[in-house]
Amino acid sequence: MIPGPSEVAEETLREIGKPVIAHYGPEWVKIYNETIELLKKIFQTTNDIFVIPGSSSSAMEASIESTIEPGDKVLVELSGNFGLRFKEIVEMHQGKAVPLEVEVGNAVDPDKVRKMLKKETGIKAMTLVSNETSTGVANPVKELGEIAQEYGILYVVDAVSALGGIDLRTDDWNIDFCITGTQKCLETPPGLALTSVSSKAWKVMESRRDPIRGWYLNLLNLRRYCNLWADWHPQGPETMPTPTFMGLRLVLKKIMNEGLQQRFDRHKKSAKAVRAAMRAMGLELFVRDEIASNTLTSVKVPLGVKLGDIITTMDNEYNTMIAGGVGPTQGKIIRIGHMGVTASPNYILPALSALEKTLVKLNYPVTLGSGVNTAKTILES
Amino acid sequence: MIPGPSEVAEETLREIGKPVIAHYGPEWVKIYNETIELLKKIFQTTNDIFVIPGSSSSAMEASIESTIEPGDKVLVELSGNFGLRFKEIVEMHQGKAVPLEVEVGNAVDPDKVRKMLKKETGIKAMTLVSNETSTGVANPVKELGEIAQEYGILYVVDAVSALGGIDLRTDDWNIDFCITGTQKCLETPPGLALTSVSSKAWKVMESRRDPIRGWYLNLLNLRRYCNLWADWHPQGPETMPTPTFMGLRLVLKKIMNEGLQQRFDRHKKSAKAVRAAMRAMGLELFVRDEIASNTLTSVKVPLGVKLGDIITTMDNEYNTMIAGGVGPTQGKIIRIGHMGVTASPNYILPALSALEKTLVKLNYPVTLGSGVNTAKTILES
Repeated sequence: MIPGPSEVAEETLREIGKPVIAHYGPEWVKIYNETIELLKKIFQTTNDIFVIPGSSSSAMEASIESTIEPGDKVLVELSGNFGLRFKEIVEMHQGKAVPLEVEVGNAVDPDKVRKMLKKETGIKAMTLVSNETSTGVANPVKELGEIAQEYGILYVVDAVSALGGIDLRTDDWNIDFCITGTQKCLETPPGLALTSVSSKAWKVMESRRDPIRGWYLNLLNLRRYCNLWADWHPQGPETMPTPTFMGLRLVLKKIMNEGLQQRFDRHKKSAKAVRAAMRAMGLELFVRDEIASNTLTSVKVPLGVKLGDIITTMDNEYNTMIAGGVGPTQGKIIRIGHMGVTASPNYILPALSALEKTLVKLNYPVTLGSGVNTAKTILES
Repeated sequence: MIPGPSEVAEETLREIGKPVIAHYGPEWVKIYNETIELLKKIFQTTNDIFVIPGSSSSAMEASIESTIEPGDKVLVELSGNFGLRFKEIVEMHQGKAVPLEVEVGNAVDPDKVRKMLKKETGIKAMTLVSNETSTGVANPVKELGEIAQEYGILYVVDAVSALGGIDLRTDDWNIDFCITGTQKCLETPPGLALTSVSSKAWKVMESRRDPIRGWYLNLLNLRRYCNLWADWHPQGPETMPTPTFMGLRLVLKKIMNEGLQQRFDRHKKSAKAVRAAMRAMGLELFVRDEIASNTLTSVKVPLGVKLGDIITTMDNEYNTMIAGGVGPTQGKIIRIGHMGVTASPNYILPALSALEKTLVKLNYPVTLGSGVNTAKTILES
């Protein structure tokens, strides 16, 4: 129940544990192209999609490295740890990060973004972490996409803990780079970064004055290799981790069978149930409902209890892993993931029960069953 | 029997198919640090080792990106496809690649390197592909390391299809970056790039005038994060593909149990047996014995037979995958891997038998059993 790497279904693990297939040849090309088409449906896009062997941060860097030249201004929101990562990446590519401070536990305010774009001229791109895994906040992706469109700037969205669990419309919401990894709502082990690339983004890359400094994450280079070797090795120049890729493909088919809307609804209901359960247990949510994520929930560590004791007891006594905060929320919040496999009564109810018993054990007053029953009512509704 | 991704043992596949563990926390730190120590033994080094989620090319770029500033000269040997990749990477980082042309199927000549270093002043680094997977040539790693030392230049070695199969002494041979991936002689699926980093290389990075342009493959950045989060997340800032990592760890233990020297001898004997078998079958080797790789063998496609027919028949009728050439050797050579799991009579003998039958089927005159028996005698010696 940690907010990623998330639980992987037994059938996916079996797929990954099969003998390794080669990352080239006609059969592979078919598998690869089919998978890209499935990804386009889940990304809700007709844009190009790249699968990069690496962690999601590699795709974050690919978007910045490929479009940002020294001195280019990038508006980076700082609603959490991963927003800060974009700032680091922009600066290491000698771009000028224009930071938008956001109070921890709060979401990006579209009005503030608009004001900033009016005040600070010449901004080329804006980054947004759609679902801040470090705080449990869901940012207003659609609204900011409208602003990006209005100002004609590139819109780079980290959808790492959102895509496949929360509605995210790459094309309708003007997202130029929609970035994710396999290990969150796509229910596959980590190892592959995914990003879509819009035609607007390609144009920016093609009209650079200063050539892209890089090879592995240089999207023009990747596209060149994809085209060059399309009939044999269509993923670009890299050796693809085929087992992870095959696992991902299986999950994508499962997602399409479930139906995107059904899946988004399931995550929404799971989040609602978890939040209500926390309140019923007397705990205080870290994020207010209107901006709370549907794939993870963050709760304040109750007074008089140590976060470390909660995590250890949950793990040792009830075989349930949950996470603490990171960065500014370290030691202050509990984070519980409900994404993909775990956005289900079979995972949520036992985890809530374990949390109730853990808190009682740690002398925090909780009525056993209060959280579980509240969640059950919502999940069954 | 392709020269990678190579066969993965059943027990490794089972390890990889286990439930995914998190890439942080005290237990993970222990696993991670143990694995790094095992890697140091296999790299024959006391230098730092980084495990980067990505294909081996990502570590190739990490070495260049971190040390080469615009205008810096790098001697790149062009004995095959992966040498050419180093040239591309150097140039995309605005370094000046000083190419050393090598006839396809031949090895780098240390005398020519020495001459070039005398003639072309100010060379900062030299790249070498120790075992050119695209041709089956083993380059003189030790000799070139002595020259690198003599001239005080950085020595970047791509050991992708060598490390864990061929003796490669990172420290004794002055290798500043020893780079490999999991999917060759380390018998694990692709997905992780590995590189060692010498103290000389760190000094070069620390004394750059122009800061490193990059984040994900910026070794100073990785080291900073490794130190910052050493007790919790020691691999740096990335989410580690833990299943592949756990598979690698299992293989590393197996390698140490086998013994490094025993393992090198096994690969040497396997290569010798395959080469002798090819000659006994009347085929012509592409590379002369003195520079032939111990982990793959390349053979000229016999006159009157089509490479595609050989590969397809082997695959369809005998369930055995072999590979053709790439780049300048495309269509001209057959490449057979014997690395890790497949450097064994249980794999080599059936594959040779399949090749004999395939050639007979394609009307090329081969005495059935000629290759197999020759190889068997050597393998049993």
